Amino acid sequence: MKVLVIGANGQIGKHLVSFIQENDKLEARAMIRDEKQAPYFKELGAEIAVVDLEDEIEAIAKAADGVDAIVFTAGSGPNTGKDKTLMIDLDAAVKTMEAAKEAKVKRYIMISSFDTTREAIQSAPESFAPYVVAKHYADEWLKSTNLDYTIIHPGLLTNDSGKNKVELATTVARGEVPREDIARVIVESLINDSTIGKEFQVVGGSTPVEEAVKSV
Amino acid sequence: MKVLVIGANGQIGKHLVSFIQENDKLEARAMIRDEKQAPYFKELGAEIAVVDLEDEIEAIAKAADGVDAIVFTAGSGPNTGKDKTLMIDLDAAVKTMEAAKEAKVKRYIMISSFDTTREAIQSAPESFAPYVVAKHYADEWLKSTNLDYTIIHPGLLTNDSGKNKVELATTVARGEVPREDIARVIVESLINDSTIGKEFQVVGGSTPVEEAVKSV
Repeated sequence: MKVLVIGANGQIGKHLVSFIQENDKLEARAMIRDEKQAPYFKELGAEIAVVDLEDEIEAIAKAADGVDAIVFTAGSGPNTGKDKTLMIDLDAAVKTMEAAKEAKVKRYIMISSFDTTREAIQSAPESFAPYVVAKHYADEWLKSTNLDYTIIHPGLLTNDSGKNKVELATTVARGEVPREDIARVIVESLINDSTIGKEFQVVGGSTPVEEAVKSV
Repeated sequence: MKVLVIGANGQIGKHLVSFIQENDKLEARAMIRDEKQAPYFKELGAEIAVVDLEDEIEAIAKAADGVDAIVFTAGSGPNTGKDKTLMIDLDAAVKTMEAAKEAKVKRYIMISSFDTTREAIQSAPESFAPYVVAKHYADEWLKSTNLDYTIIHPGLLTNDSGKNKVELATTVARGEVPREDIARVIVESLINDSTIGKEFQVVGGSTPVEEAVKSV
């Protein structure tokens, strides 16, 4: 199963490509914006596609040619300019879904924000609300497509070492979660078709990732 | 026919409420953010609803109670902060559509931007693209609802006096158009059900507004 990792050079993306390359069932194509970011991924034996997410859908579709799944883990982050929130977290996300259709890739995994519901928008602090709005509409768009989607809603991301243990359910109490463990959750989601059509929140916890994802 | 004008205190909105009040078939409820904006509309004999578009859907639905149509002519404009672009041009617009459903209002007229297609997003200058993205998704959301929508795409808006003459079609060449004439186009769209399910661009031209709208 070949997986296009969009946002590969991000912190989750780097862990993810590494885990994919370690997994016998999976191989990665790292989508990066700049050729200079390539060495890390080449060293892991991953394929490379250099595409700017602000390019046209066709460029993304070309990068997705021949893959079996797409993971969207790109993000402007909540602290970039709000213009990038609109262009990346919403519009680029939707463009990758359209690219998936063009490239006839059915499987799509979205790394969303912890809570993208209407209630979360209304109760978010003013500076954070636009980010939640962008993620909300990207998630809604994905759910309206015919893609075999999974939407992963991580808690507060940390750079702590992963514990390979999480709490994972439709809704869980807010909490932190290492980016490394989110990358593990993505890998398990890719190899468990029971996650198709599902969305769930993930924070640090006590259940092994493999078991937690199977329980979805 | 009672019409809730959202963004009544904007420059198109003020013309629109005035034209609605002059029309025997129509009456206006002006939705404004601040009670201080009320005197202009009270003088015209319009009803008033004071609601902030960043409030919850229920507050907007309450303002829409008992009306027959909603016109969305609010806008952060292309020159406000991009956070407001996300919160008003996209999210508030969608909230008013959800409010329309809750209040069982079927007719909905959106004042969009001149070109909100994917091609327009890709070719827009970097500073303008986020605004086009926000309007694009609001339009797409509207088209996915069961509302009896009309989407009006005005050319470059000016404060010139209206001429009551326009060029209006699915696509027209870029050009200027007075806000006053867009308000006239909205009024004619409200009273012509042939505009339901349609979207069209409008610039200044030589066809009387009434005739132009009927030709849609």
